[in-house]
Amino acid sequence: MKILVINPNISESVSALIEAEAKRSASPGTEIEVATAPFGVAYIETRFESLVGAYATSCVAAERAGTYDGVVVAAFGDPGLQGIKELLDVPVVGLTEASLMTAATLGQRFSIIAISPRIKAWYRETVERSHLGNRLASIRALEEPLRDIGSVQQDYAERLKALCNEVVENDGADVIIIAGAPLAGLAREIRHELPVPVVDGVSSSITQLEGLIRLNPKKATKGSFAQPPVKPNRGLPEALERLLSSRKTD
Amino acid sequence: MKILVINPNISESVSALIEAEAKRSASPGTEIEVATAPFGVAYIETRFESLVGAYATSCVAAERAGTYDGVVVAAFGDPGLQGIKELLDVPVVGLTEASLMTAATLGQRFSIIAISPRIKAWYRETVERSHLGNRLASIRALEEPLRDIGSVQQDYAERLKALCNEVVENDGADVIIIAGAPLAGLAREIRHELPVPVVDGVSSSITQLEGLIRLNPKKATKGSFAQPPVKPNRGLPEALERLLSSRKTD
Amino acid sequence: MKILVINPNISESVSALIEAEAKRSASPGTEIEVATAPFGVAYIETRFESLVGAYATSCVAAERAGTYDGVVVAAFGDPGLQGIKELLDVPVVGLTEASLMTAATLGQRFSIIAISPRIKAWYRETVERSHLGNRLASIRALEEPLRDIGSVQQDYAERLKALCNEVVENDGADVIIIAGAPLAGLAREIRHELPVPVVDGVSSSITQLEGLIRLNPKKATKGSFAQPPVKPNRGLPEALERLLSSRKTD
Amino acid sequence: MKILVINPNISESVSALIEAEAKRSASPGTEIEVATAPFGVAYIETRFESLVGAYATSCVAAERAGTYDGVVVAAFGDPGLQGIKELLDVPVVGLTEASLMTAATLGQRFSIIAISPRIKAWYRETVERSHLGNRLASIRALEEPLRDIGSVQQDYAERLKALCNEVVENDGADVIIIAGAPLAGLAREIRHELPVPVVDGVSSSITQLEGLIRLNPKKATKGSFAQPPVKPNRGLPEALERLLSSRKTD
Amino acid sequence: MKILVINPNISESVSALIEAEAKRSASPGTEIEVATAPFGVAYIETRFESLVGAYATSCVAAERAGTYDGVVVAAFGDPGLQGIKELLDVPVVGLTEASLMTAATLGQRFSIIAISPRIKAWYRETVERSHLGNRLASIRALEEPLRDIGSVQQDYAERLKALCNEVVENDGADVIIIAGAPLAGLAREIRHELPVPVVDGVSSSITQLEGLIRLNPKKATKGSFAQPPVKPNRGLPEALERLLSSRKTD
Amino acid sequence: MKILVINPNISESVSALIEAEAKRSASPGTEIEVATAPFGVAYIETRFESLVGAYATSCVAAERAGTYDGVVVAAFGDPGLQGIKELLDVPVVGLTEASLMTAATLGQRFSIIAISPRIKAWYRETVERSHLGNRLASIRALEEPLRDIGSVQQDYAERLKALCNEVVENDGADVIIIAGAPLAGLAREIRHELPVPVVDGVSSSITQLEGLIRLNPKKATKGSFAQPPVKPNRGLPEALERLLSSRKTD
Repeated sequence: MKILVINPNISESVSALIEAEAKRSASPGTEIEVATAPFGVAYIETRFESLVGAYATSCVAAERAGTYDGVVVAAFGDPGLQGIKELLDVPVVGLTEASLMTAATLGQRFSIIAISPRIKAWYRETVERSHLGNRLASIRALEEPLRDIGSVQQDYAERLKALCNEVVENDGADVIIIAGAPLAGLAREIRHELPVPVVDGVSSSITQLEGLIRLNPKKATKGSFAQPPVKPNRGLPEALERLLSSRKTD
Repeated sequence: MKILVINPNISESVSALIEAEAKRSASPGTEIEVATAPFGVAYIETRFESLVGAYATSCVAAERAGTYDGVVVAAFGDPGLQGIKELLDVPVVGLTEASLMTAATLGQRFSIIAISPRIKAWYRETVERSHLGNRLASIRALEEPLRDIGSVQQDYAERLKALCNEVVENDGADVIIIAGAPLAGLAREIRHELPVPVVDGVSSSITQLEGLIRLNPKKATKGSFAQPPVKPNRGLPEALERLLSSRKTD
Repeated sequence: MKILVINPNISESVSALIEAEAKRSASPGTEIEVATAPFGVAYIETRFESLVGAYATSCVAAERAGTYDGVVVAAFGDPGLQGIKELLDVPVVGLTEASLMTAATLGQRFSIIAISPRIKAWYRETVERSHLGNRLASIRALEEPLRDIGSVQQDYAERLKALCNEVVENDGADVIIIAGAPLAGLAREIRHELPVPVVDGVSSSITQLEGLIRLNPKKATKGSFAQPPVKPNRGLPEALERLLSSRKTD
Repeated sequence: MKILVINPNISESVSALIEAEAKRSASPGTEIEVATAPFGVAYIETRFESLVGAYATSCVAAERAGTYDGVVVAAFGDPGLQGIKELLDVPVVGLTEASLMTAATLGQRFSIIAISPRIKAWYRETVERSHLGNRLASIRALEEPLRDIGSVQQDYAERLKALCNEVVENDGADVIIIAGAPLAGLAREIRHELPVPVVDGVSSSITQLEGLIRLNPKKATKGSFAQPPVKPNRGLPEALERLLSSRKTD
Repeated sequence: MKILVINPNISESVSALIEAEAKRSASPGTEIEVATAPFGVAYIETRFESLVGAYATSCVAAERAGTYDGVVVAAFGDPGLQGIKELLDVPVVGLTEASLMTAATLGQRFSIIAISPRIKAWYRETVERSHLGNRLASIRALEEPLRDIGSVQQDYAERLKALCNEVVENDGADVIIIAGAPLAGLAREIRHELPVPVVDGVSSSITQLEGLIRLNPKKATKGSFAQPPVKPNRGLPEALERLLSSRKTD
Repeated sequence: MKILVINPNISESVSALIEAEAKRSASPGTEIEVATAPFGVAYIETRFESLVGAYATSCVAAERAGTYDGVVVAAFGDPGLQGIKELLDVPVVGLTEASLMTAATLGQRFSIIAISPRIKAWYRETVERSHLGNRLASIRALEEPLRDIGSVQQDYAERLKALCNEVVENDGADVIIIAGAPLAGLAREIRHELPVPVVDGVSSSITQLEGLIRLNPKKATKGSFAQPPVKPNRGLPEALERLLSSRKTD
């Protein structure tokens, strides 16, 4: 099977981190292709930045339509995820969604470790969209301004480990979700040092998506995740227009 | 004061309906300017269509930055509303948000009348985002396929009135929200025939926004609705990039 | 238009604060009249005190029926608000309700700054009644016993500003609601010193109510906000009995 | 022990029904005294009517202070219940509260059978105040206008039994709550004909209150159910003023 | 009446504490019999331990079927409570359920004081099962490892009192629930030293159950708390099999 | 990897259905072993039956400890699932949990199709335990009494398909969960005839569990899913006692 992993932000260094962890997580026989948003911002930590990343990700998914069995929207906060599930006829997952679904099988309450304070509000809202907000024990973040998004793991490894221990000791977390594509792979590195299971967005996404592709769910032809109805449109990239105009028969 | 009303879909006929109702609702001294999305779809009824409309609306708001005191995102479902509130330094409201806040002062439980079945799921999620989902008595919609989005009011006036009565008699609605820019003004026309207060998105938005502009709230410099942090970006329309790169001093 | 603002507590000094801020907030052409509860307690901070204030406010509203286009129940915690909405045939708002609806358009999560610890429980329950409890980041209060309810602003201005900063830094508030009629106008004074928008009950109420009056919603003849059904009664003030006995035709 | 049962409405016929069921439910050794509201309306089915009943009930409780070990606020919807709990130094229960607490031990989901459609909204809000709204399967009501509140049981016995069966068959009720003081005792009469346990407000209240009196809980001196703080007041009935002014020592 | 109190854990010392408090709480004429689980663990503080306790308690209840008018499942966390309510044809209550229902009539928000940190997660889930989670102000626990479950009260009386004061001062508790059968009776001992009402599981259970038995609710023959349908089974203790196979006629 | 699938009910015919679907769903290289509960009831549809099944399943898991990499609790309603997660040091999933997590990635709202009306209450509570109750559109069930649990699929195929279409047309389901081990494999058979994705408990469980085993999460040594603390016990099966007494070092 082939999985397209789309980085909704424009940072190639982050795409590299994502690619490394995605390939480490993939099953034998799964081909991973990573694409970077052609426009947008360096990293996504606010609702507006997510709005832009959502459109960029949609464009990339449309351009490469037909070349993959499933898509990962590879930013925590899942920019545009539900809209892209409507658009495509293959399974699509996001880093937050996959992390939540994985964490939910490993414990009752989970905490999220994030890279910046600004990002916490948007993560909280993403969790609330899933209706799992009542299982969120806490969100803790690095307080320091980020020097370089691509090197956040090395720069702050000790502080991140300290946050992990805080959520277990103080917040009642059964599971820790280390959030954000820039932290891809960090869970794998420090997992042996932590007292509860640790979940990472990229590895959870690859695993969840492989499972969905194997289950081979049918694309909805009714309900709110069927393809958007065909209707007049204007000014969209050709690939997007093509997808929106094609009628899927049952 | 001057209010910019942005139609997130590309239908000029809908923009005309919006403009008529907005001007009817505005106070003396309020100047209304309506802009139509330069790209997107004919009318928005799904999450993906909203995603596209969100980006189009952001572009329009950025292009005209500095020429208005407030913005209305004029589609029910509020495409991109929270992101656009981050982006701009003036108040921004959406049709759903304003309808909910108005309806909430007129009763405890409200129902939404919508133009298509497909749209119901997306409306429900928009209400849930506000956390007022528990006050939503029901959403009822026209079941018939829409011939022409600009003439939906005339074509279906009787059916819409019937739906209004159903939500009062059967669903326990204290207030009716007639939803969707294509229905702009319908509330005004049939209000005298209905047994509970009726709320319309466009008139509520203009009213709420005028109030906010008069209150003159300060633009946040901290918290999650401050402007997105300045960071590298690429490939954005010049107006958007300019807005994102300007540093607002406290 | 004419707005009647009723102070549910008996303190004329508080009525004076309310009147000053109400007049500052009103649009040109809006006439403000302030009435003080003829019986009750000096300031309302508990459920029982609110129960008494509710009845006093209803009596005042009934006495002056027909002389106003809308009513403000001018205590945070909105004593009797929903019952008074049933009773009258004009729009009625309360300080909490209006603050919440205004705050909800300026951010996702808000905190309330209150004048006493005792009052926090009652405020929380008022917010829960609106179903916006999940958007309440925190309620913080002055801990010191109040010397004089009419001078709380001057006495505690610095402490109140400190509480405002705490809710932004520690509790994740996007918006601050400064609560309670005794604090009427404080938002206006300190707003420029705070990093997020600040909402005040009196100015929000006047603004929201002006908007509602302009929208001219119909009085419900069905549903739970129609006038209470005509039925036998005894021992009520004449004005109240008159209102309850009049049959509103559709 | 002695229990004062206060009817918040002015109907002596309803007080008689309440008294009969209260005495039937009381343990040997429990003395029941029933008082009727000296002012108010014939029966309470709206929020405003409850607001008036709350004040009337408070006045009665204050007048007879010191003569009872506990109080029942004997209207479903519990007018003023939380405020009266603050005011008094003995346990106080309401018909809804007691019904919910009893029903909650007999099943997971319960339905409420009510006497009029108008009353449903207010009952729902009362249940929501307890935070047990998610366990409420449904509220069904007589649709017919009530001829005489004191004879509702005889007039509508068959229709009420039909509603009871509907909530079990269609709504998934494990327990039925027959609501409203005018229906006091109906549960007892038809219980043997119904397939699930039936709960009645008056008998539940007497039972719950006897239990609380036996547990002899201490009156709070801190927290939000301590007596309201002593403060200036005006125009209150002497008995109420006396209660508010007395300082309870710890 | 006769009440069977079943200790789901195997500690006779805990059964003794339970018995003492149960007898102190019982009304004259109520006979109390205490049984200890024949298999299981010393004290229950996790979900798995509760699972075992649930089965042990069911076996005991089945063995003694017909000899009691009601049953108390005497561990906080109510192991197997809902299943045992299905099984038996008399009322059954648990320590948590009874504590919550009692606390809910004494205040709006309550805190739980527990004997170990491990137990907090399971208590929280038990409260959530009742849907009263939104009224839970906090759960605080002893942090120290327990020397001897039977002597926890004496060993930690001062620390427990300190926790009680913390939940009032810091967490906004109107009522304190002292949780766990090993703490049976502690509420009675320290109640006079605390500023809010204190609720204890055993005394609440006896009181609630006496009330239910007096109300004499009918055993459901429909709905989800009717006896489990008769069906093939294997390997169950004879008493359990007999109960499951008996058909209750209406 | 090796997966142990435990059927919590005693029906070998159901175990056969489970085994067939489990093997069809497994990846190459995954060995499936199915065990049937040694005691209990023919099929689980109530809380009490689940309580018994929980204990039986725990016993089986303990007996075979060390012979598997993960466990599936193969009854919808997940008897004892959270307790068994505490007990074992490998991942454990249940049919409901896995179905929910899979469905949640395929749509926003899902409906459950069940085999009997009695079972609906217990399923609802299982979904509520996950906190995804707000995403549950509806639960519909066969109304007819089951002739033979092992042949329910053949007997009722048409009726089950009709229910599937109802939840899409009437209840707003984006995804259908066909629930219950006796229906294992039905999703696979009828999927092509339905307009939305269909999820089956057994195939979802195998897929989710394979993913978890590949992610190789660490067994918690802190938090509420660590092994239950070592403490005195009595009368437990030897295998269970051994597991409870072993101390896992970090």
